[in-house]
Amino acid sequence: MIKLYGFDLSGNTYKVKLLLHLLNLNYQFIALDVKNNQHKTSDYLKINPRGEFPALEDDSFVIWDSQAILVYLAQKYGTHLKENHWYPQVATDMAQITQWLTVANGEIFNSLGKARSMIKFGFECDFELAQKQGKIILKWINSHLSQRTWIATNNPSIADIACYPYIALCEEGNISLEGYPSIHTWFKQIQSLDGYITMPGIRPDI
Amino acid sequence: MIKLYGFDLSGNTYKVKLLLHLLNLNYQFIALDVKNNQHKTSDYLKINPRGEFPALEDDSFVIWDSQAILVYLAQKYGTHLKENHWYPQVATDMAQITQWLTVANGEIFNSLGKARSMIKFGFECDFELAQKQGKIILKWINSHLSQRTWIATNNPSIADIACYPYIALCEEGNISLEGYPSIHTWFKQIQSLDGYITMPGIRPDI
Repeated sequence: MIKLYGFDLSGNTYKVKLLLHLLNLNYQFIALDVKNNQHKTSDYLKINPRGEFPALEDDSFVIWDSQAILVYLAQKYGTHLKENHWYPQVATDMAQITQWLTVANGEIFNSLGKARSMIKFGFECDFELAQKQGKIILKWINSHLSQRTWIATNNPSIADIACYPYIALCEEGNISLEGYPSIHTWFKQIQSLDGYITMPGIRPDI
Repeated sequence: MIKLYGFDLSGNTYKVKLLLHLLNLNYQFIALDVKNNQHKTSDYLKINPRGEFPALEDDSFVIWDSQAILVYLAQKYGTHLKENHWYPQVATDMAQITQWLTVANGEIFNSLGKARSMIKFGFECDFELAQKQGKIILKWINSHLSQRTWIATNNPSIADIACYPYIALCEEGNISLEGYPSIHTWFKQIQSLDGYITMPGIRPDI
């Protein structure tokens, strides 16, 4: 039985939910009481020593980094698919995907994600810097996607799933999504995947 | 032909060098003129749009994130080994390894790496915070390693290679390595691997 611990307004939780749905997997969602810091309690720290969300349990196996959870699910449940496109077992594809997983967790989260966290949850950050870097990232991703359909390989991969949430949510951090046509085309591609689900904060018309 | 672009005093460059040596691969090292910002020139930005180091070329394939380079090399050149331990094709192992690649590039680099960058290269950072977080990370890693030999799986993996440099170099950021016996045992394990090389700044006696 797969159990996902998370928070409904977290883009990192949503990444995992989205892949679970795209892979058509059954799972139990355990909503953490974030307001009362359930993710910092000793019980939860046994599951996730980082004290963050999400975390995933699959029977006795526990994993707590969202990028790692995507790798796990794709490898465990995606390789039987006719076209094993989520995380194909080819060195060049795996490398490209890992590269964009790093960008998702690095450049994208540290700019667009942090600006949103400040506006939406009141987390401290250098807001001006986050906005400035966020715009640089959007321009870069838009240019990258102007020459290709998917972010890392020739097919939808876990890199698209990892990069999508905090880009799609960035207007919640007062960073406009106007002027990036290739990003919008990519949004539509992701949204048309069989099993796609959305999350609160992603505008239906983007 | 493998070409590695990098900087001799960079822990991220060293990660890749170390794995190249452990895999006994031939490669050409291209030392970037970092002092004169060669990594920000338009020629280099074509190889690595991030403007950072390292970057790796293998014939026509180019990859520019150090974690992704480790995945690439392990998958391309490590799977023929009798025991494919660097990045085994098992979902639970791949997930654990990815998790620690994220920690290497996240918590470890953002604390221990940044403190060192400030002391050694004069880069700006919140030094007090980097030191404080660095000590928390060292305590966490030490506790994690007190119950196991290798950081992610039962064998040496690219997660060990990714986490090692900025921990081994942290005294250059004025963060002491005293009081973490399990980390020192782990250092010795890594240093005894066939093909191990060191880098400037790693004390021979740690």
